[in-house]
Amino acid sequence: MQMALIKLTLAYDGTRYSGWQVQPNGVSIQTLVQRALETILRHKIQLTGAGRTDAGVHAEGQTAHFSTDSPLPLSRLRLSVNALLPPDIRILEAIEVPQGFHARYSATGKIYHYHLALSPDPATRLYRTPLFGPLDLDALKAAARTLIGTHDFAAFANAAHKGTAAHDSIRTLRRLDVIEEKNGLRLEFEGTGFLYKMVRNLTGTLLEVGKGQRPPDSLPALIATRDRKQAGPTAPPQGLFLMQVLY
Amino acid sequence: MQMALIKLTLAYDGTRYSGWQVQPNGVSIQTLVQRALETILRHKIQLTGAGRTDAGVHAEGQTAHFSTDSPLPLSRLRLSVNALLPPDIRILEAIEVPQGFHARYSATGKIYHYHLALSPDPATRLYRTPLFGPLDLDALKAAARTLIGTHDFAAFANAAHKGTAAHDSIRTLRRLDVIEEKNGLRLEFEGTGFLYKMVRNLTGTLLEVGKGQRPPDSLPALIATRDRKQAGPTAPPQGLFLMQVLY
Repeated sequence: MQMALIKLTLAYDGTRYSGWQVQPNGVSIQTLVQRALETILRHKIQLTGAGRTDAGVHAEGQTAHFSTDSPLPLSRLRLSVNALLPPDIRILEAIEVPQGFHARYSATGKIYHYHLALSPDPATRLYRTPLFGPLDLDALKAAARTLIGTHDFAAFANAAHKGTAAHDSIRTLRRLDVIEEKNGLRLEFEGTGFLYKMVRNLTGTLLEVGKGQRPPDSLPALIATRDRKQAGPTAPPQGLFLMQVLY
Repeated sequence: MQMALIKLTLAYDGTRYSGWQVQPNGVSIQTLVQRALETILRHKIQLTGAGRTDAGVHAEGQTAHFSTDSPLPLSRLRLSVNALLPPDIRILEAIEVPQGFHARYSATGKIYHYHLALSPDPATRLYRTPLFGPLDLDALKAAARTLIGTHDFAAFANAAHKGTAAHDSIRTLRRLDVIEEKNGLRLEFEGTGFLYKMVRNLTGTLLEVGKGQRPPDSLPALIATRDRKQAGPTAPPQGLFLMQVLY
């Protein structure tokens, strides 16, 4: 059999997991998917994701790749693996891609959504972060507009990915839409790539603007500091969804 | 101190519980709320809900009442009890009501929503029931219209509430709206009251119509049989929300 390169698109509820990637404590989503694939394919594989998501972060469009020489049809593979996986992890699509494709390095961008609830709601508490107190939506939207573009986002990167050279933390934020939902708010981020915890740090900082703790026009100066300590807190993981990896 | 009658409005995620009411197995929501109230009030209370919800069923507007002679302000009571309750149960409102009010007997109606997802989605799997295969929405809507009104709904009642006399199972369904959502469907039921598992049995039967397994004009004849065995299956609890108890 010839080796085929397979691209998976996955959705998961991150609540029960230590994140996408293998971690010392807790079960990772990658581990469970890899194990289920190996059981069905009957050979070892190396599953490579487009990027890690942290504990509690969800996905509606994570991607990953692996190679196999199994003759099993892909639609059958998807159904069989889903039958083995717990219901909070689903393979949405399995397709063959040309040799050379790489889930991480071939990606041209990513879309994340961050969900906020205007009041605490038991049934969405693991998927939306509750907002306490009033929020100045116009200020939040004005501040969001100043983040769009190509910047050195070091001030919004937690340690793990923080580069020493300036160019390591330059990213392009193509879109940051603030969308009002029933009893809530959705922040849509689309960019070429995101630094470690960047979406949650941007969200935490924008919420400070919305609460009047930071002027809406203050973010360009904050970006210029490249200092994580100057930005707002990391918003909780529960509201964050990796929606799509663009290729 | 004079005795005050207090009405609570509650929201909860039913996933972890055996339901509202005390059950032989598992923890009930009523037990946890009653225990938390007794801890804060420092006296025993009798907490009476508007009705039971089954294991896995959620609420955004369950109501309950109890009496107390505590001088504690109600806003303070609500915050203190919420601090003791797990995050999947919240008291949304606590107000004093006139003597004679009864959470169940004073109710003039209830609103339930049933959520359906067009495809399996890990992050909403506990709150929406996935639909498999195509659905004829027009047929489902036409069938829903024939259910509105005052009928003997015995064919849609599971054993626990099934009356022997005809009048025991007569209810008025004031409204049954079929609303299309992003990647899903919401059935909104408003009625004077609902028999045991009636909303889930109506939903299971309407889904059979939507799947072409039952003609859209067949429900009046089904109602006339008063025979539970003639109706469709009980839809899973996960999609069901008690939204509001009307007074």
